[in-house]
Amino acid sequence: MDARIGDISRPGRLAEPDEGIGLEELALAARNHGLPLEAMRCDLTPAGLHYVLIHYDIPAADADAWELTVRGRVRTPLTLDMETLRSFPATTQRVTMECAGNGRALLSPRPVSQPWLVEGVGCAEWTGVPLRTLLAEAGVERDAVEAVFTGADHGVERGIEQDYQRSLPLPVATGGDPEVLVAYEMNGHPLPPQHGHPLRLIVPGWYGMAHVKWLRDISLTDTPFTGFQQAVAYRYRQSADDPGEPVTRIAPRALMIPPGFPDFMSRTRVVRPGQVRLEGRAWSGRAPVTGVEVSTDDGRSWTGTELAPPDGHDWAWRRWQASWTATPGSHVLSVRAADADGHTQPLAQPWNRGGFANNLVQRISVLCPRDD
Amino acid sequence: MDARIGDISRPGRLAEPDEGIGLEELALAARNHGLPLEAMRCDLTPAGLHYVLIHYDIPAADADAWELTVRGRVRTPLTLDMETLRSFPATTQRVTMECAGNGRALLSPRPVSQPWLVEGVGCAEWTGVPLRTLLAEAGVERDAVEAVFTGADHGVERGIEQDYQRSLPLPVATGGDPEVLVAYEMNGHPLPPQHGHPLRLIVPGWYGMAHVKWLRDISLTDTPFTGFQQAVAYRYRQSADDPGEPVTRIAPRALMIPPGFPDFMSRTRVVRPGQVRLEGRAWSGRAPVTGVEVSTDDGRSWTGTELAPPDGHDWAWRRWQASWTATPGSHVLSVRAADADGHTQPLAQPWNRGGFANNLVQRISVLCPRDD
Repeated sequence: MDARIGDISRPGRLAEPDEGIGLEELALAARNHGLPLEAMRCDLTPAGLHYVLIHYDIPAADADAWELTVRGRVRTPLTLDMETLRSFPATTQRVTMECAGNGRALLSPRPVSQPWLVEGVGCAEWTGVPLRTLLAEAGVERDAVEAVFTGADHGVERGIEQDYQRSLPLPVATGGDPEVLVAYEMNGHPLPPQHGHPLRLIVPGWYGMAHVKWLRDISLTDTPFTGFQQAVAYRYRQSADDPGEPVTRIAPRALMIPPGFPDFMSRTRVVRPGQVRLEGRAWSGRAPVTGVEVSTDDGRSWTGTELAPPDGHDWAWRRWQASWTATPGSHVLSVRAADADGHTQPLAQPWNRGGFANNLVQRISVLCPRDD
Repeated sequence: MDARIGDISRPGRLAEPDEGIGLEELALAARNHGLPLEAMRCDLTPAGLHYVLIHYDIPAADADAWELTVRGRVRTPLTLDMETLRSFPATTQRVTMECAGNGRALLSPRPVSQPWLVEGVGCAEWTGVPLRTLLAEAGVERDAVEAVFTGADHGVERGIEQDYQRSLPLPVATGGDPEVLVAYEMNGHPLPPQHGHPLRLIVPGWYGMAHVKWLRDISLTDTPFTGFQQAVAYRYRQSADDPGEPVTRIAPRALMIPPGFPDFMSRTRVVRPGQVRLEGRAWSGRAPVTGVEVSTDDGRSWTGTELAPPDGHDWAWRRWQASWTATPGSHVLSVRAADADGHTQPLAQPWNRGGFANNLVQRISVLCPRDD
């Protein structure tokens, strides 16, 4: 029998018009999960509520036997166990992380992949060793241009068998703002399995694909990395033959905690007539958030909100709040963030073939029943 | 404007033939999540990997201010804070919990609700006070027939605004086998928000709908409870006007850890030719699991597996394992459990209108490529 990986691992595709979510997309949605939006009430997302996107399987990882190698264009290759990693001076950073594909399932046409609506996000405190500390320990050769990070998760994607691998340009890998971390704790506890136990990369401000989980190797190279997740996936393409540009930092986005209470199936919200507090979070990996506006009439008019002042957590979301007087009827609530680079969120979908960095404004359907 | 809850909260329905998963089902799948099946390698499921099904929102709960009331047909109504609850003798039980709707998305026709494939399950250790201890403390009146449990989660379902409420017959509520728990710890830690922080019910052997989360009230009644989750939802019905029978204990099921490694999108597995270890878990809430069989030819033939001996955790899943010699080609692997009551898993779907207790055997597509 002729059995080839190409039979089970096909090229990326777009859904047909009116094609519902299929069982393959559902299988991803059932394994992975987003942030229940009401969890934005917490500054830090508890580990079990933070969004998770796992390309292949969660590897069976033993922290006691784990080794991280640092090699390639370095003067002294390193093999580091967890105890050694914990002996370096540690740092903690509060980071809002978002999946590059967040919002994909709302696109038309819809790229067929993990079908996020808007909930592929979370904010946690990550503790570990600055990557630049480890690279200084190894001694970077002058001809190094990139650092390639390899996780222990293994699978097939569009016909290519691979360990999950991503690279960073050397100036990003060794930079101080953001400072890239080799992290072993999330919110003060050892990393949970689904977040890379025992070791992952944290790249503040970048979409989730850069934060390599189950990190087992860092290799410095003298040529740019051309692996699948760098050169094929995670690029802004308009067509299958467009080489595209790489996906890097997080576009600005604000989300609202859906007010009131939900209908189980439609998730439409119910609020009582009168004052309703609207609140949520806003972030950008490109520049500080400078303003957040809400609309209670489906985007026809917008008003400012009260944005929490900067608190020193430059890579974390910020709380915003506003008040709304709900009147009987049906309403659509929206929110949008703007950042210091002049970027804001579009009202029409920003489309690309991978469905990346889609920061279309959130729309929340709300019913305010007449008081009887 | 005429704004009514019935406009946003509709009756249950079945999907049309060939109707893909819709955005409402996807919104549930994105919030809730199943067990990544590779996590069955652990006896105990880490909290963030255990399946979660939340009907409405996760309530904002403050353990320091939490109170559980015990009232109704009791001699001494109680109001218990967390410190008082922790002062009662505690017990710990290892329990495999499964969503009553597990498998629903594979049914034809498909009931439109949370679209589980097979992953709505987990196994954890729950610590708390036996419910019968609290009921003895309150003193059960002779005319009490049921205990009604109320959670703090509030929403609308098929037009009915409600707090989540379920009841148990008094003999179950006060029984010793299983012993129902009012639990405040999961795997040795305070309950996480999504699992009912700070307090939930644990009803070993029963489907998840009985394990009321964010538990705030227990009321003994002298008539059977007829609330929505008891009399409308969670019943085995063949048609909308069939009164049906209540969903209670978990039907037998075995699941296999998908062997090898996956394709990202199709989740089809890839294994190398040669010996492949097959393993997984099996459970039943009705009677002890007595045997587990696997098929490597899509259910045409079945062979026994090695089932771990009883270990005293009568309400927890048991590990099974087998060996398979993979040969190049495409294969479908399946597994089925049988219990001491003579129940086993069907090869054709057991259909009901809610998609409950669907323990159709799992099918795992595996490709064994020719070694080159």
